[in-house]
Amino acid sequence: MEDSISAKRQPMQNLKSARAGTFRLENSSNELDPSDLQPASSFEFDAYLKSRVRLIEQALEPCAIQTGGPGERLSEAMRYSLLSGGKRLRPILALGACEAVGGRIENAMGLACAIEMIHTYSMIHDDLPCMDNDDLRRGKPTNHKVYGEAIATLAGDALLTDAFGIVARNTPAGVSRIALVETIAELSSAAGSAGMVGGQTIDLMDEGRSVSIEDLEYLHSRKTGALFVAAVMGGGRLGGGNAAQLAALGAYARAIGLAFQVIDDLLDVEGSTEQMGKRTQKDHQRGKVTYPSLLGVEASREFAEALRLKAGEALSEFDYHAEPLRRLANFAVERNS
Amino acid sequence: MEDSISAKRQPMQNLKSARAGTFRLENSSNELDPSDLQPASSFEFDAYLKSRVRLIEQALEPCAIQTGGPGERLSEAMRYSLLSGGKRLRPILALGACEAVGGRIENAMGLACAIEMIHTYSMIHDDLPCMDNDDLRRGKPTNHKVYGEAIATLAGDALLTDAFGIVARNTPAGVSRIALVETIAELSSAAGSAGMVGGQTIDLMDEGRSVSIEDLEYLHSRKTGALFVAAVMGGGRLGGGNAAQLAALGAYARAIGLAFQVIDDLLDVEGSTEQMGKRTQKDHQRGKVTYPSLLGVEASREFAEALRLKAGEALSEFDYHAEPLRRLANFAVERNS
Repeated sequence: MEDSISAKRQPMQNLKSARAGTFRLENSSNELDPSDLQPASSFEFDAYLKSRVRLIEQALEPCAIQTGGPGERLSEAMRYSLLSGGKRLRPILALGACEAVGGRIENAMGLACAIEMIHTYSMIHDDLPCMDNDDLRRGKPTNHKVYGEAIATLAGDALLTDAFGIVARNTPAGVSRIALVETIAELSSAAGSAGMVGGQTIDLMDEGRSVSIEDLEYLHSRKTGALFVAAVMGGGRLGGGNAAQLAALGAYARAIGLAFQVIDDLLDVEGSTEQMGKRTQKDHQRGKVTYPSLLGVEASREFAEALRLKAGEALSEFDYHAEPLRRLANFAVERNS
Repeated sequence: MEDSISAKRQPMQNLKSARAGTFRLENSSNELDPSDLQPASSFEFDAYLKSRVRLIEQALEPCAIQTGGPGERLSEAMRYSLLSGGKRLRPILALGACEAVGGRIENAMGLACAIEMIHTYSMIHDDLPCMDNDDLRRGKPTNHKVYGEAIATLAGDALLTDAFGIVARNTPAGVSRIALVETIAELSSAAGSAGMVGGQTIDLMDEGRSVSIEDLEYLHSRKTGALFVAAVMGGGRLGGGNAAQLAALGAYARAIGLAFQVIDDLLDVEGSTEQMGKRTQKDHQRGKVTYPSLLGVEASREFAEALRLKAGEALSEFDYHAEPLRRLANFAVERNS
C-alpha cells in the first residue's frame, strides 16, 4: 500500500490546508473542528467520547437526506432509527483505529458512517415481528411500531444499500483506491452471509438447542464480532496502516467484539429496561444460551476482563496514538447500558 | 479515465494469456469459454442469449456458497431464489454494454453478478407478506413460502450485502480502481433510497391514489429503471467507455428500462399465471395505476415501441460491438413472459 502515503497524518501546521479537504457529505455544511484533530496523547476520555459522538452524528445527519415528495416516509423512517442516539461505538472505533496508525480521522469518516448505517439496519430488521418482534429500542418504539412493517423493512434495506455508496463517495481522494476497494469488500463480508447475517441465521436456528461455549463464540464472532473487525481494520487500512498493524488491530477488534457481547449478555440479566432502553431478560425467556447461562455471572465477568487485557496486549506495539483504542476497550467492558 | 486503457479489449491472439486472468469467483472452477468471447458482429441472437445466460449462471453459482453447519439454511434460501432461472436480462445488459465500448466481458462479470443478486433480493423482499404478499415467483413458491419469513428476510439481506463484495472482489485488477469505486457508488445509489428502494416506497404510498403519467414515469425510473441504468452504465464504465459513450448508454438504459416496465404492465393484463410464472392481474386488483390503465392497451404498446426506437437511436454512434444491446432492446419489448 505504498500509494497510500499521501493519506498519512500531515504535520499540524498544515491543518488549515488539510481542513479544506476534510470530510464533507453531500448537503452538509459541517466541517471538522480543529480541536478534534489534536493528538490523543493525554486527554479526557469522557470529553473525547462526547466529541467523537458529536462529529459522527454531524456526519450521519446528511446520510439519510430528507427527500420530500411521496418517498419522504422512507427517509423519515431511516432518520428515525439512524439519528436516535446510541453509543456510536463502532464508528468511534473506526476513527480510533485510523488515528492509531497515524492516519487522519476524515479518511475513515465515510467508513464510520457506513458501519453505523449497517448497524442501524440490522437492528431495524432484527426487531421485526418475523424476527425478534421487539417493541422498544433505545427507549423508543421500534421502527415498525412507528412506520409499519413494510416501511421498516424498506428503511433497513435502504440504510444497508446506501452505506456502500457513503463509504465509496466520502473517502478522500488522497486515500488509496486499492485500500478503499479492499475495505468495501471486507465490509460486505463482515455484514453479509459470511458475517453478521450468517450469525443472525445461526442465532435463529439455535433457539432452544443445546449450544457449547465454542458454538457461542463462533456465533458471536459472526453476529457481532465481524462488524467490529470491519470497523477497526477498515479504519486502520484507510489510515494507511501496514500489514502488521492491521493484524494487531484485527486481534484487538476480535477481543473487544467478544467482550462487548459478554457484557451485553450480563446486562440482559442484570440491567433494567429503563437502563438499557430495550426489553431485558429476553434471552432467558426465549431459552437462548448466553455467557451467564453457560459460565455463570462471575466467570462471565472474568472472561470479559481477560478479553479486555487481550485487547490491550494486541496494541502493545502502538504508540500514544492508540490511546483512544485502549480506553475504548475499557469502556466496552465497564459500560452499564 | 486514462488509467483504464489496460482494461480495453486485447487483440484476439492474446486470448490465451487473457483467459489466465479471467473472472473466477471463489470456489469456482468455471472459466469462460473462448467461443463466448468472439466479436458480436454477426450472430444468432437466440444462441447469444442462451450462451450469456449460461455464462452468468456459471458465475452466479459460487456467489451463494453452500456453507454447511447451522447457517446452511441461509445459503439454501439464497440459492433457491438466485439460481431459480429468470431472464438474466440485467446482467446480460451489463456484459453487452461492456462489449459495446470494446471492453472484455469479464471486466463486467462481477458487476453483472452483483446486479442479479440485488434484483433477486428485491424480489424476495417484495414478495414478503408485509409487502406484496405473493405466493408464486418464476412458477415456484416464493422464498418465504418455503423458508419462512425470517429466513427470507435474511436471505434478501445477505444477497444485497454480498453483492457489493462480489463486484469489489471479482473485477479484474486491470480495470481502473477509480472506475470500480465509481461503479460501486452508482450501484448503491441505483439500488438504495435514491433509486429502487425509494421507488418501492413510492409504489407502496401510491396504492389507491390518483397518479399522473409523469408520476408513473418517475416511479418506474426509480423502481425498475435505476438498476437498468446501473447495469448498462456500470458495464460500459468497467469496459473502459469514455464520458460520451457512458452518456449514450445512460439514455439507452433509461429507454429500455421504461419499455421493460410498460411491457410488464401489459403482460400483467394480458398474460396468464402459467405463462408469467407469477400471479397476474394483481395490479388491477389492487387498484394500482399502470400504463394500460392510464393510456389504454394500444397506446401503451405504441409507447413501448417508441421507447425501443429511442434506445436504438441512443446507440447510433456505436459500431457492431453494440449489436447485442440493439437486439436486447427488441427482446425487452417483444418478450411474452
